[in-house]
Amino acid sequence: MSKNYAPTIGVFDSGFGGLTVLRELLPLVGDAHCVYLGDTARLPYGSKSRETIVRYAVSSARFLQQRGAELLVVACNTATALALDELREALPIPVVGVIDPGAEAAAAACSEFKNSHPDVAPGEVLVVATQATVGSHAYTRACAKLGLRATEKACPLLVPLVEEGWICEDDGEGDAARASVTAQVLRIYLSEALDEAPASRALLLGCTHYPLLRPAIERTLAELGRPLRVIDSARATARAVAQVMQQNGIARQASADTGDATCEFFATDSVQKFERLGSRFLGRPVEGVQLVDLGG
Amino acid sequence: MSKNYAPTIGVFDSGFGGLTVLRELLPLVGDAHCVYLGDTARLPYGSKSRETIVRYAVSSARFLQQRGAELLVVACNTATALALDELREALPIPVVGVIDPGAEAAAAACSEFKNSHPDVAPGEVLVVATQATVGSHAYTRACAKLGLRATEKACPLLVPLVEEGWICEDDGEGDAARASVTAQVLRIYLSEALDEAPASRALLLGCTHYPLLRPAIERTLAELGRPLRVIDSARATARAVAQVMQQNGIARQASADTGDATCEFFATDSVQKFERLGSRFLGRPVEGVQLVDLGG
Repeated sequence: MSKNYAPTIGVFDSGFGGLTVLRELLPLVGDAHCVYLGDTARLPYGSKSRETIVRYAVSSARFLQQRGAELLVVACNTATALALDELREALPIPVVGVIDPGAEAAAAACSEFKNSHPDVAPGEVLVVATQATVGSHAYTRACAKLGLRATEKACPLLVPLVEEGWICEDDGEGDAARASVTAQVLRIYLSEALDEAPASRALLLGCTHYPLLRPAIERTLAELGRPLRVIDSARATARAVAQVMQQNGIARQASADTGDATCEFFATDSVQKFERLGSRFLGRPVEGVQLVDLGG
Repeated sequence: MSKNYAPTIGVFDSGFGGLTVLRELLPLVGDAHCVYLGDTARLPYGSKSRETIVRYAVSSARFLQQRGAELLVVACNTATALALDELREALPIPVVGVIDPGAEAAAAACSEFKNSHPDVAPGEVLVVATQATVGSHAYTRACAKLGLRATEKACPLLVPLVEEGWICEDDGEGDAARASVTAQVLRIYLSEALDEAPASRALLLGCTHYPLLRPAIERTLAELGRPLRVIDSARATARAVAQVMQQNGIARQASADTGDATCEFFATDSVQKFERLGSRFLGRPVEGVQLVDLGG
């Protein structure tokens, strides 16, 4: 089943991280109109309680539905981990989270590992995420459904480090010193996690901010002598969204004159900051962001 | 003027930091009843816009007034910097912020410096604070009124480092590694700030989280060869509150049977987390925290 007008897809995150999911989504959704909401006035979700996160996520999702969303992408691990069921109850449209696709990508990576190392046990996956995501054990459950054992490690300082841009070593002395702080933080978190889970075969980035740290994470794993394969859920989530669109008749009928996907951005706090930081996550300029008040 | 029943004082912060102000306040307010609100569901304020901070601060302050507060202490530099005028307009009770008392404490320190070093120019004060506080230039204005030149430096990673407890070196190897990250971050911020403001004679902690970093800050200043005097506004604010209570007839008439001040705590997010982290800031157990929904 498919339709003859461009569908609208709502994409929601507490902040900018979900733009890494939108970035992977855009090439897969034809000429869909993507409406992105960053609930920046209330971020970070990752250090807050389940009740608060559910309340924030449902009000954000309702806003996107009112803007015409026919499908909702919860491009935020914390909101997926703690509020996916509540979002599905609250909305009459399909809701896709990032955790099941991420777990599937991890299972595929571990299965590849097993094929290339038939004598070694497939082991387990190490998941790095926010405090709230880890506290929910949503990744442990999603991985267990796929026969995979997960060890979860909360890394609460990584989001502030990414939001402050302490990730780039290329722009002089001050930046190198900043990047070395991030490297030191990664060494602390990852060495503790690998001590707890020495059989890990893959590292799953369980937060949509973390793809920006991917090179630093891969370097740290190499320094620790544990070059695990690093997986993020953005691409897997984008593929899941394309599939759900087909299954639910939201995908547009293929046509020669179909253009590119379009984007509209909303934020609950400073649009200037969103435009400035968002480009780093989306990999292209983020413009025309509109301020919205969700009553917080 | 004074009264014959225990007054109620409202103390408000975005989170736990304001408890460092409450700690200094308790010995100065007789048997007052102190009602503390931490707006933890919406923290941090320091990286958000003025409009959002004003909205959050006014709703928090109204809650405290409804709980009987006869005086409001804005124990949060960011809310004082960006919302003090709006709070004074919105509430019919006296409102005391932390910035004027902090600037007065800095002026006193610089004046002492001048007395002991009559041949050296009194120079200026270096203020470390959140991004929003620095962006408001509230400290520059408050110091200028006292004839003092201020240089402000935003240190956005210090609040997350304090909230994560990466400040203590005493509890084994993992903690020493964590504390060394905080030391490295302090070296980056403080050396940049001192390069910008080489004539600084005192360092003012312009965020109520920072007193927990005081030993680390003093050590870093010594390592940089710039042992500036470190000032926080908590004690100065507590003295200002006691004075405003006298001036406004809120202070209780002195009496032999007056007991100690009592405390009641509210938080907008997890009360467990508030009780756990809050004790670190108050210097004594924080118990019986009640959850409140401010509609965020």
